[in-house]
Amino acid sequence: MKQNIYDDPNFFKHYRQLRKTKYNFNNSLEQPALKSLLPDLYNLKVLDIGCGMGEFAKYCIENGAQHVTAIDISTNMLLIAQSEHAHQKIDFYQQSLEDFKATPSSFDCITSSLALHYMSDFHAMIGKITTMLRPNGLIIFSVEHPIATARQEMERWIYDIDGNRCHYAIDDYQDEGLRKHTWYVDGVIKYHRTLSSIINTLLSHGLAIEKVVEPIPDKEAIEKLPSLEKELRRPSFLLVKARK
Amino acid sequence: MKQNIYDDPNFFKHYRQLRKTKYNFNNSLEQPALKSLLPDLYNLKVLDIGCGMGEFAKYCIENGAQHVTAIDISTNMLLIAQSEHAHQKIDFYQQSLEDFKATPSSFDCITSSLALHYMSDFHAMIGKITTMLRPNGLIIFSVEHPIATARQEMERWIYDIDGNRCHYAIDDYQDEGLRKHTWYVDGVIKYHRTLSSIINTLLSHGLAIEKVVEPIPDKEAIEKLPSLEKELRRPSFLLVKARK
Repeated sequence: MKQNIYDDPNFFKHYRQLRKTKYNFNNSLEQPALKSLLPDLYNLKVLDIGCGMGEFAKYCIENGAQHVTAIDISTNMLLIAQSEHAHQKIDFYQQSLEDFKATPSSFDCITSSLALHYMSDFHAMIGKITTMLRPNGLIIFSVEHPIATARQEMERWIYDIDGNRCHYAIDDYQDEGLRKHTWYVDGVIKYHRTLSSIINTLLSHGLAIEKVVEPIPDKEAIEKLPSLEKELRRPSFLLVKARK
Repeated sequence: MKQNIYDDPNFFKHYRQLRKTKYNFNNSLEQPALKSLLPDLYNLKVLDIGCGMGEFAKYCIENGAQHVTAIDISTNMLLIAQSEHAHQKIDFYQQSLEDFKATPSSFDCITSSLALHYMSDFHAMIGKITTMLRPNGLIIFSVEHPIATARQEMERWIYDIDGNRCHYAIDDYQDEGLRKHTWYVDGVIKYHRTLSSIINTLLSHGLAIEKVVEPIPDKEAIEKLPSLEKELRRPSFLLVKARK
């Protein structure tokens, strides 16, 4: 069953507010890291998996991509994408990666921002992505970091009695699979995968690892969004760039 | 300055006892993982960095290697290596990797078991190793896992008042560099490096990642050495296999 938390009205109300803030973890940390991994997009055909509100698809077009196929399962997200980032070179589809009809070698670059950790079968997804990439094509994605998803219990930052963060709790690392979080609403489902499992799955499909990023906020970003400071203590995100 | 903790008499007394135990973290977890990454060693020239007591060098010869050059800085370790694992196809040298005279393309396979985290300049070491590898040669190494080395404070497992392990504490992850541990004696120096830093350093020298391992003890191993059970909760070791 595909989770579609972004069409939960209560969740979406909060999520929309978060993304409207001027500084947040997406635009201050994850998106700059993702964009830093992109090749020269000129004339490239891009598939964006879990495109959300379509800003990244639009960014690709603005940076020279020939065409972006942008898929997401959420009605809410795609309504915003269509109204705010519609472009003749972008096709938005309401579709899961699982259901997406893959044409072999049809994309130069496949991207995914913080979506793959919602999907249960990583091996199958990477297999499908590899098939859709042309030879020498790139996959560039971000997921929640294995350090951040490991512990079954939801309490991960440990605080002292004065409310200061003492350290981050890691546990259950080798126990891959479903994790239930509360993120605005209860029961948000994510899948924990170990670092080695992520890397070896890419390698097992014949992809060559080109770069791994655990984003570090710079001083300026922390000044604007002080909560980013905790990213120095443990990473929230893991990004990988790999080539077919 | 190169640390030579293995020549501290007090440390070595304890370490020697540990390694004499029938089941320990080396022979039950780290060594099987390292050996699982080895290619067919038949006729290969091997360099083993931080060879310690020479068991691994001997293992390589027993498994077909043509010759092993085995280096270590510790007099204590090499005395045991010479007395217990001397072989006409093994040359033991008391030498640091930093001081080792590298002949380009002189080894088919370069191995290192739990030694590289004692050395301060990872980029230089991997550069030197890459130079010494023949084209298509392999580097296979284990280090303490970044999750295990991250926190500056030495208390990493957090216990409840009954002495049960609650979780593992991670902190200071992005702050790479020196960590002082107490391991039998005070002031054992190790270097924390992030996962991305380790992988990207290999990639920056043109090496291709072939496999990453975070060893998981099996049921049988845990039965023999119950303390291995905590490896399910967070990994102690990280192993990487990469090809020139």
